[in-house]
Amino acid sequence: MKGNIVVGQSGGPTAVINSSIAGVYVQAKKLGVNKVYGMVHGIEGFLEDKLCDMDEYFSDPVNVEILKRTPSAFLGSCRFKMPKIEGHEDVYEKVFEIMEKHDIECLFYAGGNDSMDTVKMLSDYAAAHGKSQRFMGVPKTIDNDLPITDHCPGYGSAAKYIATSLKEVIRDNESFGAKKPTVCIVEIMGRNAGWLTAAAALAKGSDCSGADAIYLPEKVFDIDAFMNKVKELGATKSSVVIAVSEGVHIADGRYVCELANENVAVDAFGHKQMSGTAAYLAQLVAAETGLKTRAIEFSTLQRAATHLASLTDINEAFQAGADAMKAAANGETGKMIIFTRDGEDPYECGTSSYDIHEIANVERHVPDEWFTEDGTNLNEKYIAYARPLIMGELTPVYVDGLPRHIVMKELFEK
Amino acid sequence: MKGNIVVGQSGGPTAVINSSIAGVYVQAKKLGVNKVYGMVHGIEGFLEDKLCDMDEYFSDPVNVEILKRTPSAFLGSCRFKMPKIEGHEDVYEKVFEIMEKHDIECLFYAGGNDSMDTVKMLSDYAAAHGKSQRFMGVPKTIDNDLPITDHCPGYGSAAKYIATSLKEVIRDNESFGAKKPTVCIVEIMGRNAGWLTAAAALAKGSDCSGADAIYLPEKVFDIDAFMNKVKELGATKSSVVIAVSEGVHIADGRYVCELANENVAVDAFGHKQMSGTAAYLAQLVAAETGLKTRAIEFSTLQRAATHLASLTDINEAFQAGADAMKAAANGETGKMIIFTRDGEDPYECGTSSYDIHEIANVERHVPDEWFTEDGTNLNEKYIAYARPLIMGELTPVYVDGLPRHIVMKELFEK
Repeated sequence: MKGNIVVGQSGGPTAVINSSIAGVYVQAKKLGVNKVYGMVHGIEGFLEDKLCDMDEYFSDPVNVEILKRTPSAFLGSCRFKMPKIEGHEDVYEKVFEIMEKHDIECLFYAGGNDSMDTVKMLSDYAAAHGKSQRFMGVPKTIDNDLPITDHCPGYGSAAKYIATSLKEVIRDNESFGAKKPTVCIVEIMGRNAGWLTAAAALAKGSDCSGADAIYLPEKVFDIDAFMNKVKELGATKSSVVIAVSEGVHIADGRYVCELANENVAVDAFGHKQMSGTAAYLAQLVAAETGLKTRAIEFSTLQRAATHLASLTDINEAFQAGADAMKAAANGETGKMIIFTRDGEDPYECGTSSYDIHEIANVERHVPDEWFTEDGTNLNEKYIAYARPLIMGELTPVYVDGLPRHIVMKELFEK
Repeated sequence: MKGNIVVGQSGGPTAVINSSIAGVYVQAKKLGVNKVYGMVHGIEGFLEDKLCDMDEYFSDPVNVEILKRTPSAFLGSCRFKMPKIEGHEDVYEKVFEIMEKHDIECLFYAGGNDSMDTVKMLSDYAAAHGKSQRFMGVPKTIDNDLPITDHCPGYGSAAKYIATSLKEVIRDNESFGAKKPTVCIVEIMGRNAGWLTAAAALAKGSDCSGADAIYLPEKVFDIDAFMNKVKELGATKSSVVIAVSEGVHIADGRYVCELANENVAVDAFGHKQMSGTAAYLAQLVAAETGLKTRAIEFSTLQRAATHLASLTDINEAFQAGADAMKAAANGETGKMIIFTRDGEDPYECGTSSYDIHEIANVERHVPDEWFTEDGTNLNEKYIAYARPLIMGELTPVYVDGLPRHIVMKELFEK
């Protein structure tokens, strides 16, 4: 390739989104790309011409290794929705102007559904206006809800964190084993798709009794049925641990967290900001049963805990970045890298590139046939799907007793 | 030693309390003790003659290694307060009756302040009634609030988890760097002593800007001063992360969490069950400043995350158990093992045994001279104290992608 490239990160960070930009960078350098620019704070920063030169950090390969062990978005992220083209041509022209200014031939964007919409819009604009620049999507979302691809980088590490933390919570909750159980309700991220909460099912094994019930947003949440389940469990067990998605909703469509707080805030994409589902349910259980309850939210830690990332996930995130670079070097544009499972046991996964129009703005849900019969747990089909994604570890580099990260100078606030 | 021994665990579990019973067990076997019994659910289970034979699990030393990597109380815990002796002699006689029945010469109890009270009461009763049985305390508390000892096993691992997770939260919160910052308030355990929340100060380093403010229960919490601090930070920073102890209280003595919820529950020892401090403060900040806020509670994960335990802590917890066994074999009773810091840099720590009467029911707080001048952070004296306690790691044994634990058959609920 003759020109330069730029890579950006967008949306909620993950434990491995930095591995994807590492993959783009390392592959670009192998292919002889001159400058690899990073967008500072995604397309929003790019529109203000905020770029960094990635050589400054990553010409030393040790720093590439530290980058793989650094959570969140090294380049900074954003939640910026590209406006519709009609009437906002100036925004699109600005993107191409900055690309031309820096001789940028290809733009890589690592993100989830909303970010793939940005890739789609930019490649559509280029096609319609005879622009030669190319645009590639690199999948990234802990939510695992992108369609077509078998799974998304970021999910495996979040699932590993969720299952590990849940095992630890279960051990803790079981230790008291009083005459009356403590009911512990763990809230896990996932607005409309239950992939993250499903990962609670991975905790179960010969050393862990697992979650007693798992509630995903794919099924309507029936508060009476939930309460009956809790009472039934509370009558026979000395510890009850229940995993619930932040996005569970009742039959009329209202989220359970809205029952506790009617003034739920909304973000730039119109998504409700959720929190408080576990606390609300724990209060209900305590009031109706008199049992001791505890509400735990795994919160942003489930997307930031790189110290416990899955090596499979780190490697695949790297590969997605590297393969996006290869595809772009081969002239492809308007595509996202997808994963295709070629072997189940042992697990084998390949990548290819796929038309972004089939991907952007489509949400994939946990299939109905992966639930247990009563809908309150996942069956062995989910386990077979998810287990390979959490395998392996990459030891953090500990300095002064804590995992070492690499941080961009511009984003480091003293 | 001719007789047998029994070891129990009590109070809130820690990441390393199992290393302490490993230490008792391994040392007992070296000293030729015949049977090492474990109390199932502490003194409460012991009073019902619920015992296990630890040989059944730990004659294979591989299982001792897995035990060191297992969070929470392997033997089960309890929150049982021994009644005052007068008028409840039957409870005390029952303890000695069960000890005699199993030829138990020494009882070891791993726990915090409340558990050391149990050791004191039992050794007092033995002394007053001419009983030959011996009672030793093994310090354990993430709260680090036992007096006399330099620090308590359990604290270093909790501090390592808190500092690591806080680094990850800060990376996550900084990634957006929007025009207006997100204010993230992290709630950390600690009812009256701020040791755990102080650990937030360890996150700061050349790769992390650290917490912007840290509020401990040692200082009266002034809501106006807090709000001014947040506004000041919000005006200049693109990310604000504040650590706050669950036990912070206002000038009239009320806990901040009580301001949100007047009906705070109380446990067997009369301690209020806390939660919701961060959520309450986040709501206040959002309402008064219009900034986006996020509340995170580290919750029970900070005492259960053995996957991220400090090797120093694991080794010291083991040593405390082993040294308690040695002291008891030498005829000591009514004592707890304490740690004495013999060297600062490099860190060196020795142990000895200490009269339990000086320890039980006394709480140690973070010294005033370890705070920064304005009282909203910790200074280098705290860092010098705490840094050595979080050093080193013990790699978990991963099976199926998750850390492996060992679980007692009786406590495993399918």
